[in-house]
Formats: sequence, C-alpha cells, structure tokens
Amino acid sequence: MKVETLRWFNNRLEMIDQRILPAAFEYLSYYTAHSVAEGIRSMVVRGAPAIGVAAAYGVALEALRLSNATPSLTPALSPERRGSDAAEFNKGMEEGFKVLAASRPTAVNLFWALQRMRKVWESVATQTPPRIAQRLLAEAHEILAEDIRINKAMGAHGAALLKDGARVLTHCNAGALATAGWGTALGVFRSAVEAGKKISVIADETRPFLQGARLTAWEMVQENIPVTLITDNMAGHLMAQGEVDAVVVGTDRVAANGDVANKIGTYMVAVLARRHNIPFYVACPLSTIDLSIATGKDIPIEERSEDEVKGFRDCRWAAEGVKIRNPAFDVTPAELVTGLITEKGVILQPDAQGIRKLMQV
Amino acid sequence: MKVETLRWFNNRLEMIDQRILPAAFEYLSYYTAHSVAEGIRSMVVRGAPAIGVAAAYGVALEALRLSNATPSLTPALSPERRGSDAAEFNKGMEEGFKVLAASRPTAVNLFWALQRMRKVWESVATQTPPRIAQRLLAEAHEILAEDIRINKAMGAHGAALLKDGARVLTHCNAGALATAGWGTALGVFRSAVEAGKKISVIADETRPFLQGARLTAWEMVQENIPVTLITDNMAGHLMAQGEVDAVVVGTDRVAANGDVANKIGTYMVAVLARRHNIPFYVACPLSTIDLSIATGKDIPIEERSEDEVKGFRDCRWAAEGVKIRNPAFDVTPAELVTGLITEKGVILQPDAQGIRKLMQV
Repeated sequence: MKVETLRWFNNRLEMIDQRILPAAFEYLSYYTAHSVAEGIRSMVVRGAPAIGVAAAYGVALEALRLSNATPSLTPALSPERRGSDAAEFNKGMEEGFKVLAASRPTAVNLFWALQRMRKVWESVATQTPPRIAQRLLAEAHEILAEDIRINKAMGAHGAALLKDGARVLTHCNAGALATAGWGTALGVFRSAVEAGKKISVIADETRPFLQGARLTAWEMVQENIPVTLITDNMAGHLMAQGEVDAVVVGTDRVAANGDVANKIGTYMVAVLARRHNIPFYVACPLSTIDLSIATGKDIPIEERSEDEVKGFRDCRWAAEGVKIRNPAFDVTPAELVTGLITEKGVILQPDAQGIRKLMQV
Repeated sequence: MKVETLRWFNNRLEMIDQRILPAAFEYLSYYTAHSVAEGIRSMVVRGAPAIGVAAAYGVALEALRLSNATPSLTPALSPERRGSDAAEFNKGMEEGFKVLAASRPTAVNLFWALQRMRKVWESVATQTPPRIAQRLLAEAHEILAEDIRINKAMGAHGAALLKDGARVLTHCNAGALATAGWGTALGVFRSAVEAGKKISVIADETRPFLQGARLTAWEMVQENIPVTLITDNMAGHLMAQGEVDAVVVGTDRVAANGDVANKIGTYMVAVLARRHNIPFYVACPLSTIDLSIATGKDIPIEERSEDEVKGFRDCRWAAEGVKIRNPAFDVTPAELVTGLITEKGVILQPDAQGIRKLMQV
C-alpha cells in the first residue's frame, strides 16, 4: 500500500488522521486555512515536510474559498469577505497566512512553504481571485510532487551510507507519513532496501505522541522491512550491547551552523551514539535548513499540552497533582552529527561553511 | 499518609497492588511462597529492597503453611505434604525457595533475603516445623524493620549531598513503594526535606511500566514535595537547559567493581549527566551489592513480556506485526557514578577497593 499522507481529492485536501493510526486508517477533509491550521496544531498531520505541504494547501484552499471557487462546507469567518473584491480577498488571505503560521512554531518547513506561497501570490496579485487561487493550488501540487522527488534523492544519498545488514535506529517518524510520501529518514531505509540492501530498523516508541510505535512501526511493517520497537529509554542499552550500527533521524529545523532541532529525545540518542562511536545521520531536505538562525539556541521549542504526558488518548496513568513539562523538540549540536543527508548530497561533519556551500550549488 | 508497601496483617502478607496505582489503592493478600513469587513476577510488588522483604515473607508463609500453623486460603500444592513430617516439610520449603528465586533475575536483594532466611532455617532445622515457621516469620519482620532503618540512614547520608533548592532528577521508583518504607533514592529526598532543605524532583515516567509517572509522582505528591513529570526522552533536553542539579536513582544490583544495574534507561541518564557535569548518585543499601559478581557484564538482565511495550494495561498502540525488545534493566559503568549512597556512608567514585573497604567496616 502506498501511503498518501495528503492528497487533493474532489476540490479538497484530504489528510490521513495520524492521531488514530495504526488502530484506524481514515482521511479527514479540509476546506479552509483555519481548519488546516487546526489539523496541524492537533497533529492530524505532523512531520516537518508534511506540515509544509499541508500549509501550502491551506493557503490554496483559503484562496479558493475567498474567491468562491470552491464550495466550502465550513462557514467563512466573515461572509461579507467572500466574493471577488480584491481588498476583502487580500484581507482574508493575510488572515489565512497568519493562522497557518501560528499553528506550530518549530518546523521551519511551515514558514518556508508559506513564504513560497506568498511569493507566488505576489507574482499574480493583479489577477482575479479565482485565477490567483488556481495558481496557488498549482503551486501546492508542485510542492507536494517536489517533496517526493527530494525524498527519493535524499534516500539514494543516504542509502549509500548504510552497509548491507545494518541495524539502524530511528526516533519518531520521519517517514512517508511525515512527508508527501517516501519519507526522509525512512526514505533512506526504503531506498537502501530498493537498492538490494538488507537492513533492519529499531524504532524508539517516541513518547508522548508515540510516533515510533504507531507510525514508524506501521510504515515499516507495510513495507516488509524488519522493525523492532523499543521504549525510548532502551536505546542506550542496545548500543552498549553492540546492537546498533547507525542512527538516522529526520529534523524539523537545522540552524546555519548545523545544529539540529528534532523530536524530543533525539539529543539523547545523539549523545549515546557518540559515546558508542555509532554514526548519527540526519535526513534533511534543504527546505529544513534555516540560514536565518545562527545556532540551535535560537530555534523556538514548542511546549505542548500537559495532557499528552499524563497518558495517551483516553488512557491516563500519571498521579494527580504532578506538574508536567512537555517540550516537543530538542536541539542536537552539530558536533554530534556525523552527516546531514540532503537531496544534493551528504554534508559530513556539518558546519556553517559546509552548509552554505551546499546550498549555493 | 504513611506508605506501607508490605505489611503483616491477620497471619498473612498484604502488599499494595502497584500495578493499579495511582488510579486505585488496594492491598492483596498472600498465604504461600508460590503466590508471593507470582506477586513479584507480575510486579504487584517491585523495587529491589521490597522484593527482598516480600521473598522473606514468602519463605515464612510457606513454613507456616507446611506446618499447618496458618489457615491457607489457597490449596497446598500437594496436600500430602502438609503436617509436621520433617522430610515433607523440608521438601516443601525447598520448593518454596526455588519458586521465589525464579521469580525475577536481576535484583540481588531477592537472593540476599533468601540466603538469609535459609541460614536462619538451618540454624533451627532440628526444631519442629511450627517453631521453625515462627522463627522465620520473626526474621522476615526483622528484615522489614531493618530495611526502613537502613533507608533512613542512607537518606541522611544522601541528603547531605544535595544543596538547598536542588532540582533532582530520578528514574523509575526507588521510593517507599520500592522498599519496606521511606525509600532509597526518594528516601534521600524525604530526608533532605526533613532536614529543612527545599528540593524539587523531576521524575522520568519510566516506560514501559511507568513507575515514575504512577509511583514516584504519587509518592512525592503525598509528601507535598514538588514533582515535575517528564517522558524518558526529555531528561537530556532539561539537562542541556540547565534545569537539573543532580541525579539520584536506586539500583537492583551493584557489581564488585561498582557497575550499577538499575531500571532500563538509567544508563542513558548517567551518560547525559556526565556530559553536563551533573553529579549522578546511586542510593544503594549494602544488601544490593553483589561481591560475587566482578563487573556489570555478568549481571543477568531480565527480558520481560512484549505486551508491556505494545501499550499500557488495556491501552494498545503499537502497530501490529512489529517485533519487540523489552530488557527491564541496563548497566551503568562505575566510571559514570559520582557516588554510591549506602547506610554506612557515601562511596565517591566507586571502585572495587572502595566498595570492599566500606563493606568490611
């Protein structure tokens, strides 16, 4: 089964509801920027590249809605804004951009996609709203198609780094479900298997949202790639036992100096990998690199709801009265990164110079 | 509320069912070595010192049952073994020792307590079974009382290591619930607070059995000691942010060279603590030190059921078809341990010599 995390269907955006996977497989439909933003916030869709694609469609949906080009099932925020009146259209679009930008703070792909959509909008701003909307929709389609092409290019570069028989640990889900398809870290595994290598995956369960246990394990089972699930606190023991040959993870934002923000717990895996001389790779499309941020210290780290840590879904187990911390990401300093795997090649021992160089190619 | 993890009540052993805490607080009753062994295996009771005390009572219960000195609600394994016939009594007792010794492999306190009970048995072997049983019961009571005295002595030594205002991270539950009362690591916190220090606790949730979220958080809330719950993969981030001043954990077995076996994930915390120059202390009654084992490599690591990792209780979230690893413990090398806190004092930078010296005092 091909995993289509997001798809355009009947004039609407459909996204797999990743909150209920793997117990249930279901698409939810989106018609507005506001509902897409809510889908991002509540993690119906997650994973930096997928968030970027979703945001692009969010912009296109809003343009379609404001130009009355598509029937919206949800009422417009202010009905008087509908229609082709340019000022009203612009005002609504700005609101759409704003609500999308506020949906989640850490993944830079969100802002990258919004900026790209804004540029396209500006380039056709003098046209009628329906034509602008069509142009924006075409751009969203292109961002989606590009994402898959980029993942496959990254996959090929990354696969070359893994030896036959490698046992590779990954954290969270940087898979087809975190992208438009194929995946970044899991794309590397897919590409390695496609190239005839035998690899097996060790998946951290990734509390509190359990992307590893639910999504990575599910994706690998779908592909018949051997996958072993562990709790997050077992990675060190397995490394000490010599059971891990390499680590490959995704990322939500890479600073100009190569510091990597990724799902909470990634830093711990990187520190352990260094202790055990295990290579630690980050699969990182260039859209995830944020040259405007000098080091990881300046990457905003999202703090999410206490409820996520108190249990999972309807299962609650934490003692009443306890305080909670829930940072969703952490920063791995560049010095712990063996290589950044990008669509243009691998940056070994990444630093500001190596990153700038590759981005200029 | 005083936490009585195990108590002797109406000629039976009662143990808090730690599987259902904190949602429910309930005692289960035990009348035989076999049921106590099952209680240990299924983690009704857990924590190395508490397992030792439970095993001691298991031996006493079996002696009482085999000498018909106590009414057992569960049928004897072979009714013909009942009575005061010495050969039958001895055979039954050996079976009781065997089943208790097989209940869990890693915590050495289990074997320590069984050995101590066996010596007492041997010292009164010529007496009648009812008298033997009474002597064994008295010894179990003494082991329980001793455990609390030892915890308080450890607590005082450990409290001196924590500065006023310290934010201390702990993993798993080394609390009153892991002992006969007071606790080892949490005993240090209790003693520090009793000594007038303001401390706050950061509790790793400790997947898969969630002893941190359920038991440590609950104990600290009962005592009004400020406690913040995090998932296991957040400890590194908090350390990197400068939010952790010290780590104190318990242990299930310490090798002669100071290597520490403790709940899975402890090793990762120790590696991170070293990276951030945070002191890493292990609260360790002398009964937990196993001089017969040279290094941590020889400590048997229990691998538990897959079901524990696939979810929690009735909540299942792992993808179908995934393989599972579930090592319950890991080994932290002595070089990462700042100090072993024992009832006789603190062994800084523990090694074989320092440990032997303290044990001979």
